[in-house]
Formats: sequence, structure tokens, C-alpha cells
Amino acid sequence: MKINVVRSVLDASDALAAENRRRMDEARLLCVNLLSAPGSGKTTLLEKSLPALGEGIRAGVLVGDLQTTRDAERLAGAAAQVTQINTGRGCHLSPAQVAQGLSGLDLADLDYLFIENVGNMVCPAAFDLGEHRRAVLLSVPEGDDKVAKYPTLFQKADVILLTKVDLVGVLDYRFDRVRDDLAKVNTAAPVIRCSPKTGDGVAEWVAWLREQRAAMPR
Amino acid sequence: MKINVVRSVLDASDALAAENRRRMDEARLLCVNLLSAPGSGKTTLLEKSLPALGEGIRAGVLVGDLQTTRDAERLAGAAAQVTQINTGRGCHLSPAQVAQGLSGLDLADLDYLFIENVGNMVCPAAFDLGEHRRAVLLSVPEGDDKVAKYPTLFQKADVILLTKVDLVGVLDYRFDRVRDDLAKVNTAAPVIRCSPKTGDGVAEWVAWLREQRAAMPR
Repeated sequence: MKINVVRSVLDASDALAAENRRRMDEARLLCVNLLSAPGSGKTTLLEKSLPALGEGIRAGVLVGDLQTTRDAERLAGAAAQVTQINTGRGCHLSPAQVAQGLSGLDLADLDYLFIENVGNMVCPAAFDLGEHRRAVLLSVPEGDDKVAKYPTLFQKADVILLTKVDLVGVLDYRFDRVRDDLAKVNTAAPVIRCSPKTGDGVAEWVAWLREQRAAMPR
Repeated sequence: MKINVVRSVLDASDALAAENRRRMDEARLLCVNLLSAPGSGKTTLLEKSLPALGEGIRAGVLVGDLQTTRDAERLAGAAAQVTQINTGRGCHLSPAQVAQGLSGLDLADLDYLFIENVGNMVCPAAFDLGEHRRAVLLSVPEGDDKVAKYPTLFQKADVILLTKVDLVGVLDYRFDRVRDDLAKVNTAAPVIRCSPKTGDGVAEWVAWLREQRAAMPR
């Protein structure tokens, strides 16, 4: 007799995430999970960068929020396919919700899929959703102490975007503090300074995305 | 035979919160739980407002963060007593952590106790810590769509502070959107526009605190 043991909630969650990844590998699309505090500019970054991915390149977005379809509406013009996932009181997207979201998309018709997670610097960091890469945004007005205060979020980042850099002039902000704190938790991820509002740094982010996609196994 | 049933984790949590409240009632202090996204300015608000509470008025702070004692260090000059609670990977303060924090303070020597929750717009909203009042901060750079997207946080607020209003001039921000969204979720809580950095609105917040304390049963 074989006894099956589900060792933990996270084990079951990781199995669902692996299945999500398998589906996206099969469709040969690159999936990037975007994590940040509320209002760091995840939606604005996607609005500005999706059209810059290139002629004929198709991007989908699964966007998570407790309530409203506001972000999905904002992205409707820039993305080829968009699905809003409302989590109610849920503080992060789960791989089961992403699996459901994937089933509503035509994956074969996408080159990229972006998952815009619930705005939260803590809980989303603990859940693999099946993404290939994890992008963490940190906006200048949140302050230069956030890497030290929320290290788990930054430890697992494949790329870190310092957003709203156009506000550095009007705030007391020290990039050296962020750099020193990052040196303790993650030295592998490139750091891109950007302002999706002014367009600064968007080209660098798009170049990073293209490189990641080019590096996928064919 | 009596069978004890702990109906849910939240029931046990609420019992601990009630005990915290009883201890603070006994000490005749007003306890205010501050909730917001990371970087909305909770610590700066306390730094600026505690010295304005009045001659001889003593305030304590329990400050929650995943890591570091940075906020406690910042508050050491303004508060009579400060305790930092590090939650590790925990996404909110729990009433058990607050109970432990209370045991390290001389409650009889305090007029106010502020609980600076972990920066997170979702999870802290679900936990009563034993506070008498709940203050929710929303900073202008987070965007004017956050009330609609995180309604549960704002539903239970006793006062709402729109912080960093000095940035309205450099951002696209519409107070009328916030007002319209608040009209759907919470019409009882006063809304205070402030900028702890410039000092705007701090007097209004201090006046609100004094009123709440004056209204406590003696």
C-alpha cells in the first residue's frame, strides 16, 4: 500500500506552481511575477513597457487585487490579453488562482506573461506562482530603508526596479543606503533605476526582459 | 463534562486582544493602532506629533517590523518608552506579540500607547490587537485608487490620514477620487490631510488624539 502524504500547504502550493510553469514552458512564453508595495507603479510600468517589447510581440497580464478591475482596464490598451483576479481579503496571489487565470488565456498566442501580484511587501514573497523570473519594484517615496526592513522580498528578486526616480529631487533619498542594504541580501539581481512616468529606464527594463526570453530553452 | 471548543484562530486572537485592552483600560491610557502600506510615513508622523501632545504627556510606542530596530531608534527621542517587535516573516502584529510588548512597558506611566503595525495594507486589518482606536494612513504617492483597491483596511478606520500632501503638486493626484471611494466604505471616520514633513495637519491629528483620550471612561 502506498501512503500519500501532503507534507504542508506550501508543498501543495509548490506542486501547483510547477504545473503552471510546465504549461508556460510548453507555450514557450516567459512569465515574470511583479511584486511590490501598493502604489509602487507596477501597472504604470507595464503600460509603458509592453508597447516597447517590439513589433508583433504579444504580452498577457494576470493582475491581482483585492477588489476592482481598475488595473485590468488600464492595461487593456497595452496588453494583448488581460485577466483581473480579485482576491477578496487575500493578501497575495496563489498558484491555484494563477492556474485558473492561465486557463482563461490563449497561452500559445503569447510571448510574455506578466503576473502583477497584490500590492504587499510581505506575503507574496513566500509563494512561487510558477513564474520564470521575479521582478521587485521599490518606489522612491517609500523611503530608502525598505530593503533592510523587508529583506525576504528582495532576497528572491531576479531584477530590482527602483521606480519614481523623478521624485528623488523633492525627497530626502539616498541611493547609497539602498545599495548598501542590497549588498547584504542580494548581489546577483541587476538594479534598474526608472521612472515609468517620464520614461527613464524603461528601455533598460525592456532589454532585460528580451535577454531573459532569449535565454529560455527552445 | 464541559467541552471547550476553540472555534477558530481568530476567536483565540480576539480573546488575547480583549485582555490587552483590559490592561490598557486599567492603566487609563489611550491605545491607537496605526496601519498603512510600507513607507506611508507612520514613524515620521509619530516623530512629529508626540512632542506636540502636551507638557507632561507621556507616550509609548510598540513598533512592528519584519527586521531591524530602525524605527524604534528614530522614535527614541520623541517617545517616553519604545519597544521594537520584529516579526521575522510575519505580515502583521498579533495580539500575542502586543501582549508581550505591553509586559515590557510601564503602562501606569503612559497617557498614550501607539502601535505602529507592519507596513501592509491587507493582513494587519484583520487583527484586533486590543487598541481603542485605529488610524489608517494613505500617502499621496501611493495613488488615488487605493481606497477602492483595499477597502477592508479603510472600513474599520476611526480616522484616516492622507499623508505627504506636499507631493500633490508634483503628482497627478485627485482628492475627489479618494473622497468618492471613501463615501462607499467609511463615512464616519474624519479625514485629515497632512504632511508630517512640513508640519501641515499635525495639529489637527493631535487635536483628534486629545479628543479621543478625553472621551475615555474614567
